[in-house]
Amino acid sequence: MFAEIITIGDEILIGQIIDTNSAFIASELNKIGISVFQITTVQDDRSHILKAFEEAESRAEVVITTGGLGPTKDDITKRTLCEYLDDKLVTDQRVLAHVEELFEKYISTPISDVNRKQALVPSRAEVLHNAYGTAPGMWMRGKKAVFISLPGVPFEMKQLVSNEVIPRLADAFHTPFIHHRTLVTYGLGESAIAQRISEIEQGLPEFIKLAYLPNLGKVRLRLTAKGTDKDLIVGEVQKTVESLYNTIGDIIYGEEEDGTIEAIIGRLLTEKNMTLATAESFTGGSIAELITAIPGASEYFLGSIVSYATSVKVNVLNVPQELVDKHSVVSPQVAKAMASNIKRITGADFGLATTGNAGPTKGDSDADIGTVYIALATPNEVFAQKFTMGNNRTRIVQKSVHRAFQMLQKEILKF
Amino acid sequence: MFAEIITIGDEILIGQIIDTNSAFIASELNKIGISVFQITTVQDDRSHILKAFEEAESRAEVVITTGGLGPTKDDITKRTLCEYLDDKLVTDQRVLAHVEELFEKYISTPISDVNRKQALVPSRAEVLHNAYGTAPGMWMRGKKAVFISLPGVPFEMKQLVSNEVIPRLADAFHTPFIHHRTLVTYGLGESAIAQRISEIEQGLPEFIKLAYLPNLGKVRLRLTAKGTDKDLIVGEVQKTVESLYNTIGDIIYGEEEDGTIEAIIGRLLTEKNMTLATAESFTGGSIAELITAIPGASEYFLGSIVSYATSVKVNVLNVPQELVDKHSVVSPQVAKAMASNIKRITGADFGLATTGNAGPTKGDSDADIGTVYIALATPNEVFAQKFTMGNNRTRIVQKSVHRAFQMLQKEILKF
Repeated sequence: MFAEIITIGDEILIGQIIDTNSAFIASELNKIGISVFQITTVQDDRSHILKAFEEAESRAEVVITTGGLGPTKDDITKRTLCEYLDDKLVTDQRVLAHVEELFEKYISTPISDVNRKQALVPSRAEVLHNAYGTAPGMWMRGKKAVFISLPGVPFEMKQLVSNEVIPRLADAFHTPFIHHRTLVTYGLGESAIAQRISEIEQGLPEFIKLAYLPNLGKVRLRLTAKGTDKDLIVGEVQKTVESLYNTIGDIIYGEEEDGTIEAIIGRLLTEKNMTLATAESFTGGSIAELITAIPGASEYFLGSIVSYATSVKVNVLNVPQELVDKHSVVSPQVAKAMASNIKRITGADFGLATTGNAGPTKGDSDADIGTVYIALATPNEVFAQKFTMGNNRTRIVQKSVHRAFQMLQKEILKF
Repeated sequence: MFAEIITIGDEILIGQIIDTNSAFIASELNKIGISVFQITTVQDDRSHILKAFEEAESRAEVVITTGGLGPTKDDITKRTLCEYLDDKLVTDQRVLAHVEELFEKYISTPISDVNRKQALVPSRAEVLHNAYGTAPGMWMRGKKAVFISLPGVPFEMKQLVSNEVIPRLADAFHTPFIHHRTLVTYGLGESAIAQRISEIEQGLPEFIKLAYLPNLGKVRLRLTAKGTDKDLIVGEVQKTVESLYNTIGDIIYGEEEDGTIEAIIGRLLTEKNMTLATAESFTGGSIAELITAIPGASEYFLGSIVSYATSVKVNVLNVPQELVDKHSVVSPQVAKAMASNIKRITGADFGLATTGNAGPTKGDSDADIGTVYIALATPNEVFAQKFTMGNNRTRIVQKSVHRAFQMLQKEILKF
């Protein structure tokens, strides 16, 4: 059983907006066993949208569109949907009441006729309640497929998918069982891994697919199995995962379904009732930002001193000026002092520190661009590791943050 | 003149990866006057890819594919491209030498036959040199369109687009002139803006399109004009921009082409030779992270104290415990103390501070979830503003960061 996603909007085709909606929708559909056959991004253009509807309906039983539902002139999804399904727009009184209520409660400008038009829906559409916005979701039957139209604003779309679309789809369709597990590996390239696991790969049953997803020093290995016999599928995937751990366990840090590495770290620290603080130089708060994005981070994360300027390293983080003068700010000595000091200053169990040169210019140090030190102060010891991270500013930061989390995870597991 | 982008990979269709490549490619194509007609994401499947090639070639003169070029089994773009264009794979000696060199210099594992296969390219393809990776880009002539195949790894794809693809396309095609300008507004919804500028919108010349792009409290107004007479187009768009400033100048903070608001702030601080430091509570380093993502930020950004725990606010940021006890950590008093103290501690010209409750639980304060104070210490004064940001953790942080930048920009402009 297949779905298709049609993303409507010139803003995506000129590259002004990255389409994050499709990945969310695809991932939610997969969880209930619906595969996405194709994702298509089309223009705010009647004939282009009509053609996309027709093609998607020829291939899929569910067609989900996002975008083009706003009240202004460039939004034409609703009219085009009516044309395609031979329906007409009528005012839905409950939607109208909801729009009026949103304006009364939250919006300082008075409601206008343009806003009231948000309550126009195709006469045969089932309205999906958009609690967070004025554009309703819509569910309509086509000749062959179900058409679901959602607003393009990500947080409105997400709650509609989770609360309205997925439960209805799960009700309406009987679907095969799909099972994914993804192992995250560090430190080896795609082809080196392929060589080490070639026997496992050749022995995979027909219904299990293995994909390599490389990004920023990580390679994720995704197993996907599909079929009707749930127990068989889960069991065979489990066997494959075990074989992979036996063969390349040294480079696997966990399963993606466990969450990101910062979420895994959060769970570990909570379990062990331990705390963390960070001292960041060139990573500029990226580590703190990722850690605090996890709900509940205040249980284990105390804070960070982002010592971007050398003066902040010395005056706030109390790194001795002599140490800086002798070894430079990009040195294992300074990294270790930062880690020890943030641990002591905040009273945390772990102090994690980064110092390095992300470019484009050399800044307060003579170190080559891409030279990075990550230091960790644990209850037992303080140590620093050196890395060389290439010459791309963004990647140097991203890769260093990953490495820092990896080092931290390994140390927390010792307690 | 149209291009199409075909993104190849099951990982996108199951929602495991967000396709950020297409937006980059589309944006670069637009700059040289090539519009993207459609973006299509297809499976790692021979017949699906063939059909997408055929359809794209029927509509566009340039077809760009990303993904499916890795050395492992699931990568089939190259073979399918050969099938479609009736060609065969041959070893390119220069690519082989490059792959061998990359392995020798940067990769700890020995090169394998699987890696050497990266040097196989269609016999008629022009190779585009991938300096950062082993999968070469390829440029081939189809019956009607040019086919360009690029690796899916974003930083490899980006350098190929910028250094190889765009210069060749600009050479090969004579294209109409396309001109975009985007005004970023704050504080009014889409339809309220539409009402205020309805006269301007109705009076737009045929060749100028206006789009509303709402997101997180901002609405971007994008003007797009297309034609052959460059002077006319630029002049008319300029007139429209001036009319918009005259009509809704109160809610415009700048043009998107000027960069993000943090980039604008960076330029202002550099110009005025002034510095900034931040004290972040619930924003957890997000402000520092965005500021330090701008190359050259070390010129004006000193650092941040991310005082997530109350103890760090008191012990590191020197917020008096009595102030916390009397007013709670989520209060204008504490916000102001944080801003003043980070300014004083670091010696910066501006101290920016956030405190608030992003949920999901209430934490160290009784303040409602979504209650936020942003404070600013300038060379002249210290003040705090209160905001209510809804109940979604991620959005509360994102919206607060935007607001903080807005307040800061406004104050910097006074100096």
